[in-house]
Amino acid sequence: MTDQAPIRPEARSPRGFVDRRGHDLLAERRIVARVSEVYERWGFEALETSAFEYADALGKFLPDADRPNEGVFALQDDAGSDEPGEWMALRYDHTAPLARFAAQNWETLPKPYRRYAYGPVWRNEKPGPGRLRQFWQCDADTVGSDRPEADAEILAMGVEGLLATGLTPDQAVIRVSNRKLFDGLFDAGGLTDANQRLTALRAVDKFDRLGIEGVRLLLGEGRLDDSGDYTKGANLPAPLISAIEAFLASSSQTNASRAQVLDAIANVGASLGNAGEAALKELSAIDRALTSMGVEQSAVVFDPTIVRGLEYYTGTVFEAELLMETRDDKGRLVRYGSIGGGGRYDDLVARFTGQTIPATGFSFGVSRLASALRAAGQSDQARTRGPVVVIVFSEEDMQHYLDAVSELRKAGIAAELYLGRAGMKAQMKYADRRNAPAVVILGGDEIAAGQVTIKDLDAGRARAAAIADNEAWKAERPGQQTVMRDALIPTLKAIIE
Amino acid sequence: MTDQAPIRPEARSPRGFVDRRGHDLLAERRIVARVSEVYERWGFEALETSAFEYADALGKFLPDADRPNEGVFALQDDAGSDEPGEWMALRYDHTAPLARFAAQNWETLPKPYRRYAYGPVWRNEKPGPGRLRQFWQCDADTVGSDRPEADAEILAMGVEGLLATGLTPDQAVIRVSNRKLFDGLFDAGGLTDANQRLTALRAVDKFDRLGIEGVRLLLGEGRLDDSGDYTKGANLPAPLISAIEAFLASSSQTNASRAQVLDAIANVGASLGNAGEAALKELSAIDRALTSMGVEQSAVVFDPTIVRGLEYYTGTVFEAELLMETRDDKGRLVRYGSIGGGGRYDDLVARFTGQTIPATGFSFGVSRLASALRAAGQSDQARTRGPVVVIVFSEEDMQHYLDAVSELRKAGIAAELYLGRAGMKAQMKYADRRNAPAVVILGGDEIAAGQVTIKDLDAGRARAAAIADNEAWKAERPGQQTVMRDALIPTLKAIIE
Repeated sequence: MTDQAPIRPEARSPRGFVDRRGHDLLAERRIVARVSEVYERWGFEALETSAFEYADALGKFLPDADRPNEGVFALQDDAGSDEPGEWMALRYDHTAPLARFAAQNWETLPKPYRRYAYGPVWRNEKPGPGRLRQFWQCDADTVGSDRPEADAEILAMGVEGLLATGLTPDQAVIRVSNRKLFDGLFDAGGLTDANQRLTALRAVDKFDRLGIEGVRLLLGEGRLDDSGDYTKGANLPAPLISAIEAFLASSSQTNASRAQVLDAIANVGASLGNAGEAALKELSAIDRALTSMGVEQSAVVFDPTIVRGLEYYTGTVFEAELLMETRDDKGRLVRYGSIGGGGRYDDLVARFTGQTIPATGFSFGVSRLASALRAAGQSDQARTRGPVVVIVFSEEDMQHYLDAVSELRKAGIAAELYLGRAGMKAQMKYADRRNAPAVVILGGDEIAAGQVTIKDLDAGRARAAAIADNEAWKAERPGQQTVMRDALIPTLKAIIE
Repeated sequence: MTDQAPIRPEARSPRGFVDRRGHDLLAERRIVARVSEVYERWGFEALETSAFEYADALGKFLPDADRPNEGVFALQDDAGSDEPGEWMALRYDHTAPLARFAAQNWETLPKPYRRYAYGPVWRNEKPGPGRLRQFWQCDADTVGSDRPEADAEILAMGVEGLLATGLTPDQAVIRVSNRKLFDGLFDAGGLTDANQRLTALRAVDKFDRLGIEGVRLLLGEGRLDDSGDYTKGANLPAPLISAIEAFLASSSQTNASRAQVLDAIANVGASLGNAGEAALKELSAIDRALTSMGVEQSAVVFDPTIVRGLEYYTGTVFEAELLMETRDDKGRLVRYGSIGGGGRYDDLVARFTGQTIPATGFSFGVSRLASALRAAGQSDQARTRGPVVVIVFSEEDMQHYLDAVSELRKAGIAAELYLGRAGMKAQMKYADRRNAPAVVILGGDEIAAGQVTIKDLDAGRARAAAIADNEAWKAERPGQQTVMRDALIPTLKAIIE
């Protein structure tokens, strides 16, 4: 669309977008299928909204609103008239579209409305290593319940969902807190300015990265980081900073039970105000419900440093964290950290209707989880098998090849005819690259004799590895057998199964 | 984003976009899963490209290029610098992204490269009744084979895929032709202007809607339609128009076999040129391969009026058509017509590389097929069952409800706790709306007696329909039984299975 456009476009994906294929893609889809099965069993109904929402309906809740277009991909609807139309944007998560959907259909929905959703979301971020601008999320939410048991159910289901993907219980944890604890601390400390409160929350959100010292600076005047960048602080009064510090320190015990963490928070000395007291009651009810549902203390822990970056949360907040460590190609330690989270957002539907409709939900990043499982060697160990490949020699015998490949498919065996124009050697290489279990050879001799040759590629590979002498290997033709044509299916089934 | 923006956004989907949920959504997903299973069995590998492509990579191939942005949703990449970046656009199909992917990865792909893809595509059309701006397509393509058998395989697989969705053999047909037949006619008629050729092809593409008279006008000076709009014609010389007419008329025999149609075309009297003769040879090879693969004459027919609207096709073209007729709510006849198609596009990869890489593929519209199957009553007859609902009476007994619902889920029974705050009657209504098979009642009496009451909602509904007297129905409590608490699972399983 510029004057200097080259005649031939360059074949490349847009920055920050990737293609996924074959085995890796199927592994991601399996994760989604297994988690969806859990969500269905827990009584959640499937919903798929479209990629676009009107920008006003989507709202501005992403943490880094200083990016262009507030971090979303937006465009003006230009169809149907000469005037510029309304702004539309691609969804940045599944929660904002759910709030719009629930508000739009509230009268006719069964209430509470429980739905799950999965699919791509888009963030207009500056692309960087490992930072994608399109990724899959998989969510479950309950809209219309203010019960702590609704939060507990989402948490328990989140644990079961993560296990269903192939994680072991020691590889993931969900950390839980309640934003109202901070509302209470702020109220008690006399902090009323909404922007200051938000800046303070975002400072606390950096606790796991910056530690207590970094957070203290960001709650105060500000912080100079190692690169020389200065971040302005929330400028809280000193007593409030101390109260928050004491509060955060209550999370310092490791292996504390959920009840012990609640005790520690209650005894921290800082006044939590009415909001904080309400938060403690809710967390206590969540703990009871989790225990009833048999959720281990190590699977869901209470952690007062959790606040979450998204602005719309109003109460319970949670974050799912991978505890597994893997090593990359260069032997460096890779931690995956957060793979999702969620919480209560009681005001999001009210944006539309004015009527408060309490809601709570959980979301996790499919691609990130898939990549962690893959790195840990826990995605399906068996490589996805390719199809049986029928070798093509001559145009005249095409009929015989087509007969064979049709017969295989009808027998439920994944199969294909080699459709290129290369010779036998290239076809064998092709079959190997497709991870074919076997090739079917119908040469002139075989056809004349009413026979077929079948080469078991796994057996061939295994034997080839065992025989050092290339000439001996060739003479032996390991894994190769010639049988009568009507024995094709049973012979192949014996190889594949 | 305007000054007059209301404080409360209106809860609505953008024009031309819809939400899908529950049963209907699951039916669509089942279609995709079943067709994917066929594609895998035929040796095709999964690929998922991202929603965005650079606009130059996507190209301009949509038939109605006079729409804003050539019918795509486009925006300028604004991340990472202050200067306006490159234009990106949402894919309008899965073929253009495949061409980009194949060109980008050609060196390392197994060749021929066979892939299937599904997911949403976006068209920036003027929204209208039944015309959506986002819809799902499901595709399979072979890149790197010039063999007619590659086309035949795609066709045979298309037939099997459509049957796998639940269509019966008499409900769909794939019509096939070859664009080179027209290239030959144009060559022989001395028509060299590329724009005239394209206008003529688009005239022929309207054959099924306008009939031979309408096409004749569009091949000549032009046509005035009923609404008074005038469409300029291709201005072909009269002898060429006659030749095309005779050619189109060769499709007039009904129930002609593929071989008979080829004979009729060969004997039409018009010169087909070298291109046309080559097309006949390809169609003949396709016919032989289809017959070898056992594809019925009625499932894939040759029809020289097929040309397809997309500009990138170079040879074989095909169109899948639903033959079923259904009636809408008002008893009016609804024909579904085309639900997909495809063909050979040998130059699409060469746009990037300069090197011709032949390719052929098939695409069908998932949502349209799902809606046809639904209208014909052929989507899964059994309504998707909802979860068993555990009724909630009092806060104090929450533990008992949670125990029960956990037990059900562990036994593999889809179940949920009612999480709202309404009374018994509303909860029963909720269970009914969720299409729950049963509700579990743990009132104070039941808990005290170590019992549980289970209400079979199907039995209840059936009995209620049979009993005219409301009072009698209430007294009888049809489908309701109280059992010992440890009989909960077996009792429910008996109801559900």
